[in-house]
Amino acid sequence: APLVPDQEKKAESTAESISNGRTSRTVKEFLASINWLHVIILIGIPMIGLYGLINVECSFKTFVWSFIYYHFTGMGITAGYHRLWAHKAYSAVLPVRIILLLFGAGAVEGSCRWWSRDHRAHHRYIDTDKDPYSASLGFWHSHFVWLMFKQDPKKIGRANIDDLNADPWVMWQHKHYIKIATFMGLVFPTLVAGLGWGDWAGGYFYSGVLRLVTVQHSTFLVNSLAHYLGDSPYDDEHSPKDSVITAVLTFGEGYHNFHHEFPNDYRNAYKFYQYDPTKWLITAMYYLGLAYDLKTFSKNEIEKGMIQMHQKHLDAKKESIYWGIKKEDLPSMTLDEFNNLVQKDDRKLMIINKTVLDVESFINDHPGGLAYIKMGLGKDATSMFTGEVYNHSNAAKNLLCQFSIAKILDDKKQQ
Amino acid sequence: APLVPDQEKKAESTAESISNGRTSRTVKEFLASINWLHVIILIGIPMIGLYGLINVECSFKTFVWSFIYYHFTGMGITAGYHRLWAHKAYSAVLPVRIILLLFGAGAVEGSCRWWSRDHRAHHRYIDTDKDPYSASLGFWHSHFVWLMFKQDPKKIGRANIDDLNADPWVMWQHKHYIKIATFMGLVFPTLVAGLGWGDWAGGYFYSGVLRLVTVQHSTFLVNSLAHYLGDSPYDDEHSPKDSVITAVLTFGEGYHNFHHEFPNDYRNAYKFYQYDPTKWLITAMYYLGLAYDLKTFSKNEIEKGMIQMHQKHLDAKKESIYWGIKKEDLPSMTLDEFNNLVQKDDRKLMIINKTVLDVESFINDHPGGLAYIKMGLGKDATSMFTGEVYNHSNAAKNLLCQFSIAKILDDKKQQ
Ligand code: HEM
Ligand code: HEM
Ligand SMILES: [Fe+2]
Ligand SMILES: [Fe+2]
Ligand SMILES: [Fe+2]
Ligand SMILES: [Fe+2]
Repeated sequence: APLVPDQEKKAESTAESISNGRTSRTVKEFLASINWLHVIILIGIPMIGLYGLINVECSFKTFVWSFIYYHFTGMGITAGYHRLWAHKAYSAVLPVRIILLLFGAGAVEGSCRWWSRDHRAHHRYIDTDKDPYSASLGFWHSHFVWLMFKQDPKKIGRANIDDLNADPWVMWQHKHYIKIATFMGLVFPTLVAGLGWGDWAGGYFYSGVLRLVTVQHSTFLVNSLAHYLGDSPYDDEHSPKDSVITAVLTFGEGYHNFHHEFPNDYRNAYKFYQYDPTKWLITAMYYLGLAYDLKTFSKNEIEKGMIQMHQKHLDAKKESIYWGIKKEDLPSMTLDEFNNLVQKDDRKLMIINKTVLDVESFINDHPGGLAYIKMGLGKDATSMFTGEVYNHSNAAKNLLCQFSIAKILDDKKQQ
Repeated sequence: APLVPDQEKKAESTAESISNGRTSRTVKEFLASINWLHVIILIGIPMIGLYGLINVECSFKTFVWSFIYYHFTGMGITAGYHRLWAHKAYSAVLPVRIILLLFGAGAVEGSCRWWSRDHRAHHRYIDTDKDPYSASLGFWHSHFVWLMFKQDPKKIGRANIDDLNADPWVMWQHKHYIKIATFMGLVFPTLVAGLGWGDWAGGYFYSGVLRLVTVQHSTFLVNSLAHYLGDSPYDDEHSPKDSVITAVLTFGEGYHNFHHEFPNDYRNAYKFYQYDPTKWLITAMYYLGLAYDLKTFSKNEIEKGMIQMHQKHLDAKKESIYWGIKKEDLPSMTLDEFNNLVQKDDRKLMIINKTVLDVESFINDHPGGLAYIKMGLGKDATSMFTGEVYNHSNAAKNLLCQFSIAKILDDKKQQ
C-alpha cells in the first residue's frame, strides 16, 4: 500500500471482494475500503504535531534545522523520486542516489518504487479513472483523499517499472522502507537537534513531525493545486497548469503544464527567472560531476506548443469579433444600378475594392473630415482611399466591412 | 508662421527662392531658411527661465500654482487644440471652448488654427516628407527642430480646415494670437501669484516662463517620443507607439499608436487603467453637461487591430520554428521496402499516420520509457500512439516530424 509497502496484495483482494459483492454499498463495505494505516498517518501525525506546536517551544536553531531538513526531504521527493526515478530525466552517481533515496524516505510518502509506479500511471492515464490521483475527482481527492482508500488494481492504470525493479538500490529502499522511513522521518532529525544543541523535544516535534507534515502537503500540492491553479501555456487538453504560486510551495514543481508535456525534461521551469530550486540543485550537481545525462526538450519543440496555444487563444478571440459579411455572400449590383441609386435616390454610396459601401451613417464621423470623404461619394473611391488622397490605416480598412451592402458585378463577366 | 500667425506668406516666398536658386546651398541660404522668431522663443525663453531658476526662489504657493497652471495650459492643448479642434473628437459648450482657446494660447504653441492645420497634415502624411514633423527625420527634428526652420509650403502636405475657418472663436484667437498668448502665457500667471500672495518675481519666472517651457516640451514629446518609444498594438505600418511613459509626460497623449489608428476617438487610452487625464477631463465635462457628442470607435473595431497585430507577431514566431519536412516533400516507400529495412537492416522504424519514422536516436529518450516505444517498432504504431497504449500529448505529436524519413505509399493507389 502507498505510504508503507507490501500491502498491495491485501488491498487488491479487498477491492475485488467489494466489486464482486452483490449487496449494496453498506457502511461495512465503506469502512473496509479505507486504508486505515494511511488515515492514521495522514490524520494522527498532524495531531501529534499540533500537540507539539502548543506545548513545546521552537528554538531558533531547531527552526533553521527544520527549514533545512524540509528542503532536503522535499527535494528527496522532487529531485529524487520524481525527476530521477519516475521520469529518468537525468542520471546521478551512486552516493547521490543513496542520499536521495534516504531523504526521499524522510518525507514518508511511500517507497520510491511504489511512488514512481503510481506517478507513471498518473502521467499515462492523466485525468481519467485510471489515474491514481485524478484531478477530475476534485481538489481534495487528488491532494490526499485518494491515499485514504485502498487502490482498486482493476481500476488503476498499469505502468511499466522494469527499470526500477532492476535497480538494486531502489529495491533495497522498497524492502526496508518502514525502517528507513521511521529513521529518516523522525529519528534522524531528532538526533541532529538533540545531539547538536540538546533540543530533543523540539527536534522531535518541529524537525521530525511538523516538518514531515509540511513536506507531505507541499508535495501533495503537485497533484492537487498544480492541476487547478494557473494557465496552460503548452497544451490545454488536460488539467495540469503552470503557476508560480504552486512552484514556490513545491520546490519548483509548479510548472506542471510544461512537465506533463515534457515529463523527462530535468527542468520544470523552462525560463531562467522561474522558481525551480529542484532544477537548480540538479544543475549544481551536474557542474560538480555528481549528475549527468540531463535530458531536455529543444527550444524548438517547446516553443511549438506555446505558439499553438497562442494561436488557439487568438482564434477564440477572432470568433468573438464581427468581421462583416463575406464578399461572396453580398448581393450583386451592376454599375447602372449603383448610379441610379446615387443619382435618383440620393443614396450616399461609394465603391471601394469592387464593394458598394453605404456611408450615410459615417460621413459625419469620418476621422479625415467631411470634405474628403464627400469627394468619394457616387464614385469608385478605391484609389483615393488607398493612397491618392490618403493611404488609410489598417483600422480604416477593417472598418469598411461595416458599410458594405453589395458587390459590384464585374463588367467583363456580364458581357 | 507657426508660433505666431501670418508669417506663412513670407515663409512661402523665401522657401521658393531657395528651391529655385541654382547656386549651391550656402551659409546665407541656410540662415535665410531659419525661423528666427521661433529660435528666439525656443532658445531665449528657456534662458530667461534658467536665470530665474538660479536667482529667484520658488515659494510653495507659487510652485503649486505653477503645477496647476501647467496642467491647465497643457490640457488647453490636448483637450482643446488637439482632440476638440484638430480631430473633432467631441463637442463642447461655448464657455468651455473659449477657456480651452485661452489656456491653449497660454502654452504658446501657435494659434489653434495653425496648430490644427499642421496636425491634420501630420496625420494624413505621417512619416513622409509632407509630414510637418516627420518622425523619419529623427527624434530632435520631430521634437522641435522642425519649428526652427521656415516651412516649405511646396513640400508640406495640405489639410482641409474649412471647419476651423468657419468657427468664429477659432478665428478670433488666430487673429489676436500674439496678444492672447502674451497675456495667457506670461501676464496672467504672474498676476495670479502677484495679486494672490505677492510673489511677482516667482509668478513671472516659475508660473510664467518655466511653466511655459515645460508645457511646450511636454506637448512636443507627442511628436517625438510618442513616435519612438513603446509598442504598436494596433498597427505597425507607421511610427506611432503606445507607451505609459509618454502618456505620463503628455497628459495622456502617449497611446499614440491607438490615436493614429482612431484619431477622432476622444480617448487616447483605450483601457480604463491607462493614464489619460485628458480623457478624464472630457468625461467629467460630459457628466457636467459641458461636453457632448463624444466619439468612440467600437470595441469590435479596436480589437480587430489588436488581433491582427498579435497574429502578425505569432506568424513571425512561427517562421522561426522548424516544423519538419512537409509530408508531400518526403520520399515515398512501399510497405515491402519498410519491412525489408526493419528485418534485413535492423532499422528502428515505425509507421505513424502513414509516415515512416526512424526513432533510433529517440528510443532511449522516450519519455514513456523504453519498453513501450519498443512495442511499436517495425509496425504501424498509429493506434498505439493515439490511444490504444497512450494518447500522446500535442508535444509528442509535434515531435514526430523530427523523425520522419518517408511516406508510405497508399496500397490502393499502387494497385
Ligand atoms: C467608408 C470609407 C472610409 C472610411 C471607413 C474611412 C476611414 C478613415 C479613418 C478610420 C481615418 C483615420 C486615420 C486612419 O485610420 O488611417 C481616416 C482618415 C482620413 N480619410 Fe478616410 N475613410 C473613408 C473614405 C475616405 C475617402 C473616400 C477619402 C478621400 C477621398 C478619405 C480621406 C481621408 C483623409 C485625408 C484622412 C486623414 C486625415 C486624418 O487622419 O486626420 N477617407 N479615414
Ligand atoms: C516517435 C514516436 C513516439 C514519440 C515521439 C513519443 C513521445 C512521447 C512523449 C513526448 C511522451 C511524454 C508525454 C506526452 O507528451 O504525452 C510520451 C509518453 C508516453 N509514450 Fe510515447 N512516443 C512515441 C511512441 C510511443 C509508442 C509507440 C508507445 C507505445 C506503444 C508509446 C507509449 C508512451 C506511453 C505509455 C507514455 C506515457 C508515460 C509517461 O508519460 O510517463 N510512445 N511519448
Ligand atoms: Fe500531474
Ligand atoms: Fe511527473
Ligand atoms: Fe503623431
Ligand atoms: Fe492627433
